Amino acid sequence: MAKDFPKRSENYSEWYNELVVRADLAEQSAVRGCMVIKPYGYAIWEKMQHQLDKMFKETGHQNAYFPLFIPKSFLSREAEHVEGFAKECAVVTHHRLMNAPDGSGVVVDPSAKLEEELIVRPTSETIIWSTYKNWIKSYRDLPILCNQWANVVRWEMRTRMFLRTAEFLWQEGHTAHATREEAEEEARRMLEVYAEFVEKYMAVPVLKGHKSPNERFAGALDTLCIEAMMQDGKALQAGTSHFLGQNFAKAFEVQFLNKENKLEYVWATSWGVSTRLMGALIMTHSDDNGLVLPPHLAPIHVAIVPICKSDEQQRQLDEHIAPIVKALEAKGLVVKYDNRPEYKPGWKFNEYEFKGVPVRLAIGPRDLENGTCEVCRRDTLEKITMPIEGIADHVYDLMEQIQQNLFKKAADFRASMTRKVDTWDDFKVEIEKNGFLLCHWDGTQETEERIKEETKATIRCIPFDAPEEEGKCIYSGKPSHRRVVFARSY
Amino acid sequence: MAKDFPKRSENYSEWYNELVVRADLAEQSAVRGCMVIKPYGYAIWEKMQHQLDKMFKETGHQNAYFPLFIPKSFLSREAEHVEGFAKECAVVTHHRLMNAPDGSGVVVDPSAKLEEELIVRPTSETIIWSTYKNWIKSYRDLPILCNQWANVVRWEMRTRMFLRTAEFLWQEGHTAHATREEAEEEARRMLEVYAEFVEKYMAVPVLKGHKSPNERFAGALDTLCIEAMMQDGKALQAGTSHFLGQNFAKAFEVQFLNKENKLEYVWATSWGVSTRLMGALIMTHSDDNGLVLPPHLAPIHVAIVPICKSDEQQRQLDEHIAPIVKALEAKGLVVKYDNRPEYKPGWKFNEYEFKGVPVRLAIGPRDLENGTCEVCRRDTLEKITMPIEGIADHVYDLMEQIQQNLFKKAADFRASMTRKVDTWDDFKVEIEKNGFLLCHWDGTQETEERIKEETKATIRCIPFDAPEEEGKCIYSGKPSHRRVVFARSY
Repeated sequence: MAKDFPKRSENYSEWYNELVVRADLAEQSAVRGCMVIKPYGYAIWEKMQHQLDKMFKETGHQNAYFPLFIPKSFLSREAEHVEGFAKECAVVTHHRLMNAPDGSGVVVDPSAKLEEELIVRPTSETIIWSTYKNWIKSYRDLPILCNQWANVVRWEMRTRMFLRTAEFLWQEGHTAHATREEAEEEARRMLEVYAEFVEKYMAVPVLKGHKSPNERFAGALDTLCIEAMMQDGKALQAGTSHFLGQNFAKAFEVQFLNKENKLEYVWATSWGVSTRLMGALIMTHSDDNGLVLPPHLAPIHVAIVPICKSDEQQRQLDEHIAPIVKALEAKGLVVKYDNRPEYKPGWKFNEYEFKGVPVRLAIGPRDLENGTCEVCRRDTLEKITMPIEGIADHVYDLMEQIQQNLFKKAADFRASMTRKVDTWDDFKVEIEKNGFLLCHWDGTQETEERIKEETKATIRCIPFDAPEEEGKCIYSGKPSHRRVVFARSY
Repeated sequence: MAKDFPKRSENYSEWYNELVVRADLAEQSAVRGCMVIKPYGYAIWEKMQHQLDKMFKETGHQNAYFPLFIPKSFLSREAEHVEGFAKECAVVTHHRLMNAPDGSGVVVDPSAKLEEELIVRPTSETIIWSTYKNWIKSYRDLPILCNQWANVVRWEMRTRMFLRTAEFLWQEGHTAHATREEAEEEARRMLEVYAEFVEKYMAVPVLKGHKSPNERFAGALDTLCIEAMMQDGKALQAGTSHFLGQNFAKAFEVQFLNKENKLEYVWATSWGVSTRLMGALIMTHSDDNGLVLPPHLAPIHVAIVPICKSDEQQRQLDEHIAPIVKALEAKGLVVKYDNRPEYKPGWKFNEYEFKGVPVRLAIGPRDLENGTCEVCRRDTLEKITMPIEGIADHVYDLMEQIQQNLFKKAADFRASMTRKVDTWDDFKVEIEKNGFLLCHWDGTQETEERIKEETKATIRCIPFDAPEEEGKCIYSGKPSHRRVVFARSY
């Protein structure tokens, strides 16, 4: 058990912040609101990237790269977009520094002021649609299915590592289509890709649905989202996919000649997930002993710790364990055999436990005699002694069991924290306990805003699979045809 | 042959610029000096990244991510570094936009001025060493072997796609070591990794050596480099690896307790290659018919074009060609079967030729009868008709032949353009014909600067394998012990 490590039940927020730093995932940098993603954290992000990239390519997308900077005037081109994104952002105004006349360092050269300020991209719709204008002339040029892996900057006032940082890493897909139907299908397809990734690889169950108009992306006609539930019962938006209609095509005058030789505006989507997924991963599975990682995303699958009292024993164990490492690696597992003499076994146990390594094996001199080893699962902390014979098969199977168990645990927790609420009085009580509240809503932005003001709860999504059901809005009492999901959120 | 496409011999520079755009590699963006890397160009860069990343990991490195922004004061911490990098750079001065009072769009909010300006990283030594300070306490924390894939910005006045752009993509390795020897070995190791990558994958022969003091990285004690020769005989620096001594450790006060429990400053290296490699790749192999790609980096290995006059023939060919595609893919090759009816075979031939696809197959009705196909190699433009039987093996073998042939061609060209020059009069004549000139040099910065002023030639490198040879400096006549390589460069 890690010393001085906060418990989730005592201070969930502090538990999270400490965990991120102590598990070597990330740390604050010298630049306000920007984090350093440390090698262990980055290795998890790389695994996410790798799998997502594969899924994007399998669905016909190609990667490209667009500029970091956006001319200020571009942001004003799409009326709603400017409201959403041209606010807190990093503005480049000069392109040169010079030595301070008093020798105190460097200062901005006032003569190097840019004619038009450049904005560090908060998202790339505008710069990309200004580019697509050159790429699209005819229906033959469509669809365009591009994705970019990039850094973006949004000048957030209150930041938390992975969840909300001034600079973050993400991917943004930007597609162009000849018809409304095709664009709508694309937006839905990519949401399904996200849901599949988050559930299968991150072992995080998600709700899929539409955002209410209040929560839509600035410039979108429809925003689809996946919503996950954290262990404190709050919601976390894990990914969004937007149907942008013809808004950006009109803002940047992107038209194409259709098969009938008539000019039409192009239909668009955009979709993204970010390093925020790291926050979702951490907060869904980890416990009071530190990080818990699903095997599909763990940089190390198995840590092996030898226990010995002499150099001679160490040598024997090294020899004995080498073929076990080999057998595990032959199964495609990443193994860390940690025989560093400067650290004690107890220290190593804590280390791998805290870092969420799914399985740890410990092998001592007695195991050597008996042909056994101790197997410890990170998800349940269960320890059993097993024969070495067949250990690789056993550990390999454990990986799938752990992956499934983590998903099931999270799904069960979500189910236990999801309930129907039918009156405003109940709502005010229930929302204090967090979780997902399934409620009737009259469909107006006004009601949604009032509920948010009074309770800090928002509509997380209108689930695709919400059954039709007649009812009355919990707030206004007006008629409603299906329940939506309310929650407090990150 | 592409229409209106400049010949290398007529205008090499225009040939390059046109090629980049017409082969769909990249294009200028709306932001001065920043390019858009298009999907086909990015696919090549991804292949480079993938291989380099693998080689970095095989040599024990891990990826991490550090902030995009650097506090202005950090740049002044290392005296030489500030001279080299705190000049032309993008300066963030504000963090908010607001609606213009006159409704004309958005303007910078003057109340949102940053206390200290932030610089968009031109390179990350300073922000990384300010971070390493927290990571390093004892010799047990060393070495640190980090790499980051990132975008950087240097406000260049004259830009050319891939070769010199305001924003570019690169990787930067930053390592920390307990001893000078270890850091020097690391710098050399990574240069060898670069050389191996560039020669084996890009099929571009390189010289390996030290930079002269004039050409060193700002803040380095030694800069190692690989230098390639382009088809116009000019040199292109393809990668650098720096031994930084203790300069950054001193600037950021990074000390460690050694095994004797004494405080010492940490030793550093940094090393990087960038999207500039794309420029080297293009300029080394391509010809007057467009791009030529080495198979190891080609996004498409084989394009197959069916030739037919009726839907019935098309159907027959589709059926006939399907197993050929399958057989090629089973060999690990990426195949594009292009049966789009809206484009003619001739158009497709030009398209794949211009895009540098290593092998193109054409199959028509007569081939169908004869069990043959036409095989065209992009590197030699040789066409031969071959039996379909065994075609997958043949094409697979061709890939290795093309890869080798491209390297050999480039190496032969370089050899033909490399010569020893012993007098200043000869030098002035020879440098006009470009190429690498092997000359004696007196080892002084003064001489190097004079030669640069008078001829625009610089010392590209002092090769590791330059044999000891007594001679006289071509410029000053002073004694010299080995020849160095002079050239004009990109």
